[in-house]
Amino acid sequence: MERSDIAIVGGGPAGLSAALNASVRNKSVRLFSSDYRETGLYKAEWLENILGVPGMTGADYLEHCIGQVKERGIAITSGRVLSVMPMTDGFMLSVGADVYSVRAVILASGIIQKAAFPGEQELLGKGVSYCATCDGMLYRKKTVCVVIRAAEGIHEANYLHEIGSTVTVISDGRDLAGLNEAIPVVMGKRIAVLGESAVEGLQVDGETIPCQGVFILRSTIALSSLLPNLELVDGHVGVDRDMQTNIPGVFAAGDCTGRPYQVSKAVGEGQVAALGAVEYLDKL
Amino acid sequence: MERSDIAIVGGGPAGLSAALNASVRNKSVRLFSSDYRETGLYKAEWLENILGVPGMTGADYLEHCIGQVKERGIAITSGRVLSVMPMTDGFMLSVGADVYSVRAVILASGIIQKAAFPGEQELLGKGVSYCATCDGMLYRKKTVCVVIRAAEGIHEANYLHEIGSTVTVISDGRDLAGLNEAIPVVMGKRIAVLGESAVEGLQVDGETIPCQGVFILRSTIALSSLLPNLELVDGHVGVDRDMQTNIPGVFAAGDCTGRPYQVSKAVGEGQVAALGAVEYLDKL
Repeated sequence: MERSDIAIVGGGPAGLSAALNASVRNKSVRLFSSDYRETGLYKAEWLENILGVPGMTGADYLEHCIGQVKERGIAITSGRVLSVMPMTDGFMLSVGADVYSVRAVILASGIIQKAAFPGEQELLGKGVSYCATCDGMLYRKKTVCVVIRAAEGIHEANYLHEIGSTVTVISDGRDLAGLNEAIPVVMGKRIAVLGESAVEGLQVDGETIPCQGVFILRSTIALSSLLPNLELVDGHVGVDRDMQTNIPGVFAAGDCTGRPYQVSKAVGEGQVAALGAVEYLDKL
Repeated sequence: MERSDIAIVGGGPAGLSAALNASVRNKSVRLFSSDYRETGLYKAEWLENILGVPGMTGADYLEHCIGQVKERGIAITSGRVLSVMPMTDGFMLSVGADVYSVRAVILASGIIQKAAFPGEQELLGKGVSYCATCDGMLYRKKTVCVVIRAAEGIHEANYLHEIGSTVTVISDGRDLAGLNEAIPVVMGKRIAVLGESAVEGLQVDGETIPCQGVFILRSTIALSSLLPNLELVDGHVGVDRDMQTNIPGVFAAGDCTGRPYQVSKAVGEGQVAALGAVEYLDKL
């Protein structure tokens, strides 16, 4: 299993700044990011309040920053981090079907998802899953709903269909180009997972679809699922002035730590979190 | 008297970022800065850890940022802020011999000066002054020492000489080009101000120079002199996560708030302080 000094969860300005600064301090870094084109920043029409950076679109800025990080040889792994498990000598990260071992973690996953769908948290692991690649085989020849809230969901729905699940996709209206045409699509935004001890169905805008499994594909996993003991303060990750969370070895930066949701704040906090993580590792 | 929404004390990355962000939010801003070529950042050989900014020298970076701020039409006033006085409806700033009225203040004055010279704080206003332009006339035909720790000091020493003071300059070895040749220069680094209820002399590396006035010209004034009620924590300006200090309407950003002394941290904090000040003003 690959082992790095620092895992960075999130490829926005906070995560990229953390990666750059940790690398400049000679730490091995692995950055995990979902598709950057799904972010709000990518769609920003014009940025003109970032000191040192001339006015440009969000897309140009993000691509410019990603290029800067890649030029330093920093590995950017595309994929969603599904869990962060504290171990005696660091952390184990599940990313899709892969596992990575690291010594410290910087959370930079962006604005924290508001409340999960009703029933989602309660039935997680009892029919609710965030990863078809991981759990799909349990649902062969069963009926599943795939709630797509990120581009990666299309691939996951196709995979479930291919291994023999009966799949219904629930879409919020986004582009589903690439989805297997044999898969039916239901439009709907008000979602609830039904069932007592196991998933029995999915309610979509009031209509119930019976099923045994519900795959929910967002670009980021709720932090409360990622790291159950992480302390939140007013709905954001609680940090001190050094960007340390309540879990030793876990730092946070950017929008997940609170307002204002702004690029320079995120870049600055990414730097402070990286230097905090470096200091933490050097003291071990 | 000119009145602006926000005064920014300091023209490094934190102050420039605060100015840019406050201006984007339609507040009138006045930024006070001593010579940026006196800063440590200006002398930095190479910056490579600022996300979004390609590798460049500190001088290039600072000049690039100053250009960006000036392009927005933000006024940069060269000069040292001597005091910030809370008034019923804002603050009055003394800058050299000028006075400015503002509604909120952002402190971004860089690394906080270590302990003042022995006797300096005790004899401030009793013979110790930070501004020849303001207090010089009190010392006509008297003997004064001018301790030069910033380029502006040369002009101030010449002025005191011209109005008829007997001037001795105390230098730490810096370039004194432009100093009136009639003014004697004493080299020395260990400085102490002598006197009980008023200045009686200056001790320089153990030698005593009798005098009635001591002008100390640094590029920034100690924050404890600027704003006597400002709360410091571990030698830095105490701020909350919104960069508010203990004084309503006074925010802080950058090195003066603590380590790490890094550009991205300063730029991010400048942004947060500016948005905090904007919100403060909008609530008034």
